[in-house]
Amino acid sequence: MSKPTMIKKISAADIEAGLLALPGWMHEDDKLYREFGFADFSRAFGFMAAAAIQAQAMNHHPEWFNVYATVKVWLTTHDAGGITQRDLDLAAVMNALFKPE
Amino acid sequence: MSKPTMIKKISAADIEAGLLALPGWMHEDDKLYREFGFADFSRAFGFMAAAAIQAQAMNHHPEWFNVYATVKVWLTTHDAGGITQRDLDLAAVMNALFKPE
Amino acid sequence: MSKPTMIKKISAADIEAGLLALPGWMHEDDKLYREFGFADFSRAFGFMAAAAIQAQAMNHHPEWFNVYATVKVWLTTHDAGGITQRDLDLAAVMNALFKPE
Amino acid sequence: MSKPTMIKKISAADIEAGLLALPGWMHEDDKLYREFGFADFSRAFGFMAAAAIQAQAMNHHPEWFNVYATVKVWLTTHDAGGITQRDLDLAAVMNALFKPE
Repeated sequence: MSKPTMIKKISAADIEAGLLALPGWMHEDDKLYREFGFADFSRAFGFMAAAAIQAQAMNHHPEWFNVYATVKVWLTTHDAGGITQRDLDLAAVMNALFKPE
Repeated sequence: MSKPTMIKKISAADIEAGLLALPGWMHEDDKLYREFGFADFSRAFGFMAAAAIQAQAMNHHPEWFNVYATVKVWLTTHDAGGITQRDLDLAAVMNALFKPE
Repeated sequence: MSKPTMIKKISAADIEAGLLALPGWMHEDDKLYREFGFADFSRAFGFMAAAAIQAQAMNHHPEWFNVYATVKVWLTTHDAGGITQRDLDLAAVMNALFKPE
Repeated sequence: MSKPTMIKKISAADIEAGLLALPGWMHEDDKLYREFGFADFSRAFGFMAAAAIQAQAMNHHPEWFNVYATVKVWLTTHDAGGITQRDLDLAAVMNALFKPE
């Protein structure tokens, strides 16, 4: 569970390259951003529970907002002052968990 | 959130008829039983979170067991001393939430 | 689970009166707002899971934001165009669930 | 997230010593066992959500059963064929999360 001691911001070009494999995610205000839509609140929160479990195990936590069936997520690495590989990794985990109806 | 005052056990024939629309569920020891399998623990628990939210809103709660990627569920209505329509309804809700990989 | 057909905005005076029993909540931008702080992410999310279960059973859902150990909540009733008794009720439920370390 | 390659069963004496610091837990059928009781289902499940997040991060998962406000937990380390330090650690995490009403 120890953090890597050196985690570095990645370049805008590397972010854009990473986003090619991350449908739905955008690079916005120096964060990765995606909005997920579900059939109802229970499914939205079930997704959040699964993502919370994986996020903690990655020792990397999302900024996220929920109302009813919508979940908005922003990813950034505060320790690095911007987007890092960890954000791309967590975005990929969330996409893998997302099962639209 | 008030409970219906009269909830009655249903007949074995009605249970069997109900189970025709509930793949994976069995009638065992006067309960409905199903085992759900997932790709990993996070997905198993995400399913449980979604089901928990719907179960509480139905004012009907499962007996359930989890270890890693497996969730076993038993449904019965204690107030009625056996299986009722509520159990069939909660089984249907769980099947609708279940998205095998 | 049917919605009351008539749910009405309450007056600013009634909101202020209600807030007297709701430590931590504020009236801001025609919503009720509170920020909850926890010891860590797991406790913040555990609180959200409990609140999600109760919110769905009340058929009333929060707008909420989480990052790590912080949960920010905004309550309003979209159908009524402002704050209603339901918002005061959900705020009370959340306060009852909140166990600071 | 890699598992320690060597995780060993601990002796009955070490288990008993460990249990001294773990109120509520028992040594039963070569597992650690505890039953947790809550005020209601939402609180029981909120506890499970927090514990699930910490368990995954420890790469160690409980066997647990829930019905309404009761959560029963059995801890063992399958890879080691019995109780290990990891079980004592997860038991301590769960006790720390448990806030009886």
